[in-house]
Amino acid sequence: MTRGTGGPTLAVVGATGAVGAVMLDLLSTRRNVYGEIRLVASPRSAGRTLTVRGEPVEVAALAPEVFDGVDIAMFGVPEAVSAEWAPVVTSRGAVVVDNSGAFRMVPDVPLVVPEVNPERVRRRPRGIVASPSCATLSMIVVLGALHRRYGLRELVVSSYQAASGAGQDGIDTLYEQMEKVGGDRALGNRAGDLRGAVGEFGPFPAPLALNVVPWAGEVRDGGWSSAELKIRDESRKVLGLPELRVTATCVRVPVVTAHSLSVHAVFKERVEQREAQAVLAASPGVVLCDNPAFQEFPTPADVVGTDPVWVGRVRRSLDDPKALDLFLCGDNLRNGAALNTAQVAELLAAELTA
Amino acid sequence: MTRGTGGPTLAVVGATGAVGAVMLDLLSTRRNVYGEIRLVASPRSAGRTLTVRGEPVEVAALAPEVFDGVDIAMFGVPEAVSAEWAPVVTSRGAVVVDNSGAFRMVPDVPLVVPEVNPERVRRRPRGIVASPSCATLSMIVVLGALHRRYGLRELVVSSYQAASGAGQDGIDTLYEQMEKVGGDRALGNRAGDLRGAVGEFGPFPAPLALNVVPWAGEVRDGGWSSAELKIRDESRKVLGLPELRVTATCVRVPVVTAHSLSVHAVFKERVEQREAQAVLAASPGVVLCDNPAFQEFPTPADVVGTDPVWVGRVRRSLDDPKALDLFLCGDNLRNGAALNTAQVAELLAAELTA
Repeated sequence: MTRGTGGPTLAVVGATGAVGAVMLDLLSTRRNVYGEIRLVASPRSAGRTLTVRGEPVEVAALAPEVFDGVDIAMFGVPEAVSAEWAPVVTSRGAVVVDNSGAFRMVPDVPLVVPEVNPERVRRRPRGIVASPSCATLSMIVVLGALHRRYGLRELVVSSYQAASGAGQDGIDTLYEQMEKVGGDRALGNRAGDLRGAVGEFGPFPAPLALNVVPWAGEVRDGGWSSAELKIRDESRKVLGLPELRVTATCVRVPVVTAHSLSVHAVFKERVEQREAQAVLAASPGVVLCDNPAFQEFPTPADVVGTDPVWVGRVRRSLDDPKALDLFLCGDNLRNGAALNTAQVAELLAAELTA
Repeated sequence: MTRGTGGPTLAVVGATGAVGAVMLDLLSTRRNVYGEIRLVASPRSAGRTLTVRGEPVEVAALAPEVFDGVDIAMFGVPEAVSAEWAPVVTSRGAVVVDNSGAFRMVPDVPLVVPEVNPERVRRRPRGIVASPSCATLSMIVVLGALHRRYGLRELVVSSYQAASGAGQDGIDTLYEQMEKVGGDRALGNRAGDLRGAVGEFGPFPAPLALNVVPWAGEVRDGGWSSAELKIRDESRKVLGLPELRVTATCVRVPVVTAHSLSVHAVFKERVEQREAQAVLAASPGVVLCDNPAFQEFPTPADVVGTDPVWVGRVRRSLDDPKALDLFLCGDNLRNGAALNTAQVAELLAAELTA
């Protein structure tokens, strides 16, 4: 355990995982609002000592009594673990901020992005607050800002999603394929050659190195993927627009970390390019990077490891004065997972301290 | 020179280039409709002997008298060369089929895709017929088929464009960056690291290996790129729909060859998924590859080196019964350049022989 201010007691569940590591980094570098911080992980990972706020903390094994006296629990664990343990933790009196998909679309669980709908954090009948999936988080802060100004009506989204969206297995698979493919000039010219050359496909349904794969998630009705439906459902819920028209095509690209999205957004009101850029430049959590004449636009390689969403290529559609086209990038592990969970937990900490 | 049937005499201008090589391959494998075939290139490349229809042919240097007696000239050369030489060749009586951007948007030059608007090849007051750019060609056969059935109203396109769209320099740059990056696990995790690691950017404004770059072409008004405006202008012209609403975002991905496009298409009439799939499956030049439950969807790695456009992920939009979302791939050097030029030349050959 580690002691800080006299603030609320926090538990980080899944502290030894990929998202957990970013959570600890954020807790060590953001404003210190917590009293005690406890680290929790599966029994397999328990016993290790990790550093938070510059102090060593031993990781406790997941068990009900670990949460006695805890005010807020940040969950960075797989969906099944959240589904099982969140009710256990809330029954001990803690509020759970869950980063998994277990509760996102449950009606009496608010889905909160502090820059967009912070007020929703206060109505949490189950004691659980959910955080959106990484692809939704990459765009929702940008869209929230534009919605407040112009009134959002419709979204057409195409994604360029990183391998790490499929977890450590996705990262390992891409690096292993890159190692095998390297600069081999015999590859990339003949249909099917990559299938033999890249080795294991890992969590992807086709080679990812030197390729793009138009699939993420599970098969749903009508030919949709679960990743595409998540973008639609979660955007509607966070923005509070249950009738919002949303269509998404999710595509995996050979990038390690940082999701990119190409977004066509149609509004109720007429838009102006310069004004929209000014709205975005003034929005917390957003960096405007938009000057093609000077080769300024966001790319995953320039965005990975940073907190904000980066947006560029802001254009007014040539055939619709109420539509904007833009391109944005966000670190899917940081911006798209740990950061939002940490920000929601800070909202709760402020409420508990007030 | 090489002799075939008693058909028209053909000249291939730019025979030693990347597109020229595919043109010769197509001339050797498609139905033999020409009499003599002459090969032409810049004086620098002239004198070499290439194989067409199984016979060796010496490449002649570009000069006006080379075109005496030529009926049809296929141009696979840079825009400036086409702009200078097409009028010279037409003044000698040949019809020019131009693969460059020099004449695509000139009002009295037809822009022809044989599967979509073959009738337009007959009205050619300048003696020039143009072929669309590779990104437009990747989708126009698919859209033409759907337009005939449902009536197209609007397109929202996001591209996943291959390095070879930027020519041999683009191909070399990607392979060199892949060689340098390989499976290095230190790369892809920290902002800016790739900028130092990949070496030269070549024709791209940012690293392409392990990255995606939301830019292709030159800067135009309103923040648009020339590649994005080409898709709009050429789609309207080929489909004969000057008022068609088109918005495109062009993004380069680390794929050697084969462009992919995510397309949201809105129609005048209500669409059905199964019927749209059947329309596409029955369309010449199109292969339907669309069964996600069996991991069937097109990817660049499975499409490179093949002639057709491959289309999959065909879905009816959940919020608009008149809209379809789909993902398609086409070899940008073959399907997107040489093949269409060869098919247009065959239309002309049939007309001259009739």
